[in-house]
Amino acid sequence: MSEKLWDKGYEVDKLVEEFTVGSDYIVDMKLIEYDIKASLVHAEMLRRMSYLCEDEFEEIKDALERLLALVRDGKFKISRQEEDCHTAIENFLVQQIGDVGKKIHTARSRNDQVLTALRLMYKEELGIIRELIVELQDAVKRFSENYGDIRFAGFTHTRKAMPTDFRTFGMALRDALSDDLVLLDTIYKIIDQSPLGTGAGYGVPVEIDREFTSQRLGFVKVQENPIYAQNSRGKFDFMVMYVLSQVSYDLNRFASDIILFSLPDVGYLILPKELCTGSSIMPQKFNPDPLELVRAYHHRIVAHMLEVVSMSSNLISGYHRDFQLLKEVVIDGFEITKQMLRVMKLVFERLKVNEDMCNRSVTDEVLATQRVYELVRAGVPFRDAYKKIAEKYSEGR
Amino acid sequence: MSEKLWDKGYEVDKLVEEFTVGSDYIVDMKLIEYDIKASLVHAEMLRRMSYLCEDEFEEIKDALERLLALVRDGKFKISRQEEDCHTAIENFLVQQIGDVGKKIHTARSRNDQVLTALRLMYKEELGIIRELIVELQDAVKRFSENYGDIRFAGFTHTRKAMPTDFRTFGMALRDALSDDLVLLDTIYKIIDQSPLGTGAGYGVPVEIDREFTSQRLGFVKVQENPIYAQNSRGKFDFMVMYVLSQVSYDLNRFASDIILFSLPDVGYLILPKELCTGSSIMPQKFNPDPLELVRAYHHRIVAHMLEVVSMSSNLISGYHRDFQLLKEVVIDGFEITKQMLRVMKLVFERLKVNEDMCNRSVTDEVLATQRVYELVRAGVPFRDAYKKIAEKYSEGR
Amino acid sequence: MSEKLWDKGYEVDKLVEEFTVGSDYIVDMKLIEYDIKASLVHAEMLRRMSYLCEDEFEEIKDALERLLALVRDGKFKISRQEEDCHTAIENFLVQQIGDVGKKIHTARSRNDQVLTALRLMYKEELGIIRELIVELQDAVKRFSENYGDIRFAGFTHTRKAMPTDFRTFGMALRDALSDDLVLLDTIYKIIDQSPLGTGAGYGVPVEIDREFTSQRLGFVKVQENPIYAQNSRGKFDFMVMYVLSQVSYDLNRFASDIILFSLPDVGYLILPKELCTGSSIMPQKFNPDPLELVRAYHHRIVAHMLEVVSMSSNLISGYHRDFQLLKEVVIDGFEITKQMLRVMKLVFERLKVNEDMCNRSVTDEVLATQRVYELVRAGVPFRDAYKKIAEKYSEGR
Amino acid sequence: MSEKLWDKGYEVDKLVEEFTVGSDYIVDMKLIEYDIKASLVHAEMLRRMSYLCEDEFEEIKDALERLLALVRDGKFKISRQEEDCHTAIENFLVQQIGDVGKKIHTARSRNDQVLTALRLMYKEELGIIRELIVELQDAVKRFSENYGDIRFAGFTHTRKAMPTDFRTFGMALRDALSDDLVLLDTIYKIIDQSPLGTGAGYGVPVEIDREFTSQRLGFVKVQENPIYAQNSRGKFDFMVMYVLSQVSYDLNRFASDIILFSLPDVGYLILPKELCTGSSIMPQKFNPDPLELVRAYHHRIVAHMLEVVSMSSNLISGYHRDFQLLKEVVIDGFEITKQMLRVMKLVFERLKVNEDMCNRSVTDEVLATQRVYELVRAGVPFRDAYKKIAEKYSEGR
Repeated sequence: MSEKLWDKGYEVDKLVEEFTVGSDYIVDMKLIEYDIKASLVHAEMLRRMSYLCEDEFEEIKDALERLLALVRDGKFKISRQEEDCHTAIENFLVQQIGDVGKKIHTARSRNDQVLTALRLMYKEELGIIRELIVELQDAVKRFSENYGDIRFAGFTHTRKAMPTDFRTFGMALRDALSDDLVLLDTIYKIIDQSPLGTGAGYGVPVEIDREFTSQRLGFVKVQENPIYAQNSRGKFDFMVMYVLSQVSYDLNRFASDIILFSLPDVGYLILPKELCTGSSIMPQKFNPDPLELVRAYHHRIVAHMLEVVSMSSNLISGYHRDFQLLKEVVIDGFEITKQMLRVMKLVFERLKVNEDMCNRSVTDEVLATQRVYELVRAGVPFRDAYKKIAEKYSEGR
Repeated sequence: MSEKLWDKGYEVDKLVEEFTVGSDYIVDMKLIEYDIKASLVHAEMLRRMSYLCEDEFEEIKDALERLLALVRDGKFKISRQEEDCHTAIENFLVQQIGDVGKKIHTARSRNDQVLTALRLMYKEELGIIRELIVELQDAVKRFSENYGDIRFAGFTHTRKAMPTDFRTFGMALRDALSDDLVLLDTIYKIIDQSPLGTGAGYGVPVEIDREFTSQRLGFVKVQENPIYAQNSRGKFDFMVMYVLSQVSYDLNRFASDIILFSLPDVGYLILPKELCTGSSIMPQKFNPDPLELVRAYHHRIVAHMLEVVSMSSNLISGYHRDFQLLKEVVIDGFEITKQMLRVMKLVFERLKVNEDMCNRSVTDEVLATQRVYELVRAGVPFRDAYKKIAEKYSEGR
Repeated sequence: MSEKLWDKGYEVDKLVEEFTVGSDYIVDMKLIEYDIKASLVHAEMLRRMSYLCEDEFEEIKDALERLLALVRDGKFKISRQEEDCHTAIENFLVQQIGDVGKKIHTARSRNDQVLTALRLMYKEELGIIRELIVELQDAVKRFSENYGDIRFAGFTHTRKAMPTDFRTFGMALRDALSDDLVLLDTIYKIIDQSPLGTGAGYGVPVEIDREFTSQRLGFVKVQENPIYAQNSRGKFDFMVMYVLSQVSYDLNRFASDIILFSLPDVGYLILPKELCTGSSIMPQKFNPDPLELVRAYHHRIVAHMLEVVSMSSNLISGYHRDFQLLKEVVIDGFEITKQMLRVMKLVFERLKVNEDMCNRSVTDEVLATQRVYELVRAGVPFRDAYKKIAEKYSEGR
Repeated sequence: MSEKLWDKGYEVDKLVEEFTVGSDYIVDMKLIEYDIKASLVHAEMLRRMSYLCEDEFEEIKDALERLLALVRDGKFKISRQEEDCHTAIENFLVQQIGDVGKKIHTARSRNDQVLTALRLMYKEELGIIRELIVELQDAVKRFSENYGDIRFAGFTHTRKAMPTDFRTFGMALRDALSDDLVLLDTIYKIIDQSPLGTGAGYGVPVEIDREFTSQRLGFVKVQENPIYAQNSRGKFDFMVMYVLSQVSYDLNRFASDIILFSLPDVGYLILPKELCTGSSIMPQKFNPDPLELVRAYHHRIVAHMLEVVSMSSNLISGYHRDFQLLKEVVIDGFEITKQMLRVMKLVFERLKVNEDMCNRSVTDEVLATQRVYELVRAGVPFRDAYKKIAEKYSEGR
């Protein structure tokens, strides 16, 4: 009952089976709901185009709905022999409704099937990430409202430089995230095209209604070109991983800031202890582990992006099994990014400012540029004013 | 006369000077025109805000115009001691017009100065790349019009799969590039904000008119937040390198296609000899070198992107000298991408199709899926039809 | 009973706990045996140095052995609250033997504890990979013995170039792997130094016998410098990932060769069907999926290597929580590499050569260089001979 | 007179010529001495095997020596039309000595020619880098001798942790570099095999004496397998870039340390002003630019390594024009690494320790672990002692 979609009556070597299936049968549990949804719409189209009669369609629909219920109740597992969710769905249908189930794959290939399921998932995940970004921006805004007026010495070259304040600091993150949202929305819009009906990259040799399935699945348009649909595997994954990298880039920056600013020697910020973990040997330690992990996960996201682009380069057009590995990488990318955003929101909600240390940081040195401009206002050319003030700080070095 | 902007009367170690200047004094020759342009607008603003009187402004303006003429005539060189174009401009002004020149740096820092020059360049270069993409799309369109009806066996898994044609093939590239243009336009729009006036990331302690300089320089808006302006060094470079990577990704794919399709054993395409180079040892060889280099340069673009993102991670907000290295990487990225686009355009203009080899590729095997659908039309469930046809091709393996 | 090693009587935020623990409590099940082994040797040392009396040591030893048995029987699980195997071991001891268990962490930190466990694992895994490489070399040798005399046209620039044979082809992989073994042995030797006793990078403030634990654990020497021990987290992981990348690089190359050489149009090689999988839509397809996945996994290995080096750059000396993420990356690298090696061995065992297609590939064109040398032997300067023969092949292009 | 080695009487498209030549004609000026040296040895072998008579050999020898003199005097340039140094050498010979010059390419290809020249260069450059590493180690040793006894609080999680001293700190770098030297020596040994005589990857169809050329060029052994010789392009470049990355990794770490330790708030170290540069706007600034650039260049080295491995993956055995791009990447890698090593040596020679700030950093908190062990010595189980001391530091957080 658990045969593969391409079963032709011979057995694949066991080692090959294990190697090629990999963790697909587990990863695909995250994909199966999207695949069921798309399969139902595909069946509707088959009925519309008369490849299924009404009764057949109803049987398929009922079976798919039963399957969905099982999945949601955690009562359905994909077996390793079945390889993936696409096979599992067809097998379930055949097992439940016999020959009618064997018609579900009419006019599609696993290639457009997985593309469709992934794209539905990507859209949903990008939507969730969008919301989390906005929530983080709100938390940063509240932080800025609470502490915005407090001034501290900003850094250049990891050296105290000139005065700034926590409003400017917070808003710098908000603005960065706003630009990320523009990217995210653009990428969402680009990937919002339906690949269903492109088969294995060369269409299907029967008439179908791609406009219908596209609309029913909520896509804005049909991805007309079947070769491009196939080539967008890899390409669209690169886009998605890129925008996650751009978000994680900003979080890495501000996590780095907070780690340094909460180092007691600098002391601008205080990380409450419920955000810290300790040492197994040093009893005095309160370590900023969640921020360090935000910083670190950024590199995982970037490595995932690199894997996507590097894996799918130097290959000709058309599907390659190599692309199978992209799936879990992108799904992991979404999971990590969501966690990073939630943790950074929590950090900005709990973070405290040490006003005293901030005030003390705005020393005479940090105000040196203001001294220059006092001379400029008195008519000294900027460069001469700069040199005059510089003399004072060169002594004793 | 060639002192550094931060000269404070002491000598830096020679090795340190060489190391820190690096190739800036050469790279900056590509940047200096943008910097002169921005310096002029900055001077206008200084006059407007009364930091310069009318005469002073005219002196600066004349001197900057003389400098621009020298640069365009190839008669100006930045010396290594001067470090960069920012210093060279101020030194030129001081040398030409004395004390007035020492006022040009009023209300700015090298940090916002270089950000401004780079951003002007990025916008111009993205505009050129946009045009080259459209030109390539046109060449691909003409290729598709000439050869579009010729059918050939498309590949999956580097194995002949199902019939397609050169219209579908060509349009797959055009569609991919159209999506790239959407990304390019978005990124252009994001970076189109003026950093001038943000100083070293913490503003300048005098009143300035940022709206004025932004408009005069053709920016759509002011980048208000000075910390974000500084943090966008690295972040915006990442965006730019990303979109170049997305373009080079598509070119890599189609270069790979053409290399395989023009392998005589496959034989769909013929690369005319003026696009080929030969071997120093094998007299019969006509090698697809330009396509191999297109394929290869993609990896350089991706490596550049990686360098940008990796170099600027794990750092706190605010300028670091590390960012100096980003400049040449992005400039090189533009140069390479422009060349790749020009070469691919030439390839599509010259490429010929071997109609005979194409026809012969559409074998009975390649039509097997059509056989399946003949059975489907006769009422056989898809999966059964598939298996029936599959039997025929399993024999003898 | 499941408190953390750094428990100080306060609760960490739930989200922070989930985020910081990550998948450690699962990953560490692969590490726990090494940690138990090292804990036992550590306890021996504590007895030797009189931090434990004989009875205490025996209690600890018995408890650790019971734990090892539970682990091996699959009856032990690390809970998420416990975070990691280090905590789980101490908790188990305290639960089983009370106050004596609280002494196990004397003179160590989780930092040197995890370093020790990882290093023991790395050594063992590198040993396994060494064996698999040798087994693959043997399979390649047998392939070369079976088919070595068959000549075929080798490629340059993806174009047929000059004659070669399968002995040369096979031996090229064997020689590459032999050089990889030299690297592997060197890296094994470098990492073969005991970090136990370096605490959190700054030693422990009591006298210990590092030479004793090093020898008992099978290390060749003590890693004396505690800061270097800590810094070798990241650095040694980079080494290990690098050597895996170097191996996967060779496998990627030969997987690519076999994919092209078994494309029917080239046809040198035949991949038996038990090594192929099929298409869900095209009944005629036999696809080289295992080779495509070998090709693809190489990029995952490289991405893992990049993650390791990028994640641990721009950080100061001393442990950072960032390093926690390295663990699962390297462990995954070992798993993948072992699978790749096993699959490639199977491929070389089953691969067949199509002698007829090979013979036919050695055409007159492919022998053009030999024609040149016939003229050279007759006294024509090489370059003139080359041009004379070249004329023949330029016609009609 | 400046025709290409593969000239067959037709003109390549101008754009293609520019694109394919790239910057080779400039880069190759760094390679040409090695190529002349190898050409001379190749000519000796041709005489030995009687492909050249004694007079012909002498003519070639004299001409090569004249060329070498011109190169060393800076009086020789490779033209763009000539493409590379290999062509330039043959053209020079033909121009100087006519038909005899046309014999120099007998029994070789540009492929083994460039491999040989590069390998000679790699060996020499690795030798120089070895020396610079040892010099840096010596400088670090002297630093450790001068300041070794001074204690300071070491960090974990970017938080002060436990006491250490500058001897341990310095030795941590020395030990890391010693392990790098083991890698460097191994990689030197692996690449020390002569590729000369492997032609374009498929040998040459005449008898030659590879053992002779190998010994005369100072290689330890012949790289027998011609396919492997060709495949080692990319693979050996990866090895070389890897070992440079491993060195730059260590320098990045210690540059990061010194940047933080010389931040006045931490204050352990003082960077003398001749190692600092200033700000164009802030007169008080002394920035650690050379250290920031050491930190940053590490990422360029890693990006170069990535480019090498990524560019040459997913390709079949045999030369591809893609490999041309590797050359300049590796040469740049050597240049950067040498500079980084020289700068770090200078830094350790000039760096000063602020003993007072170091002493003050060893606070009561930093000694908390010692307090724990006082209790342990008094018989309290470690974990209980830890908790007792921890109480003290939890208050008020």
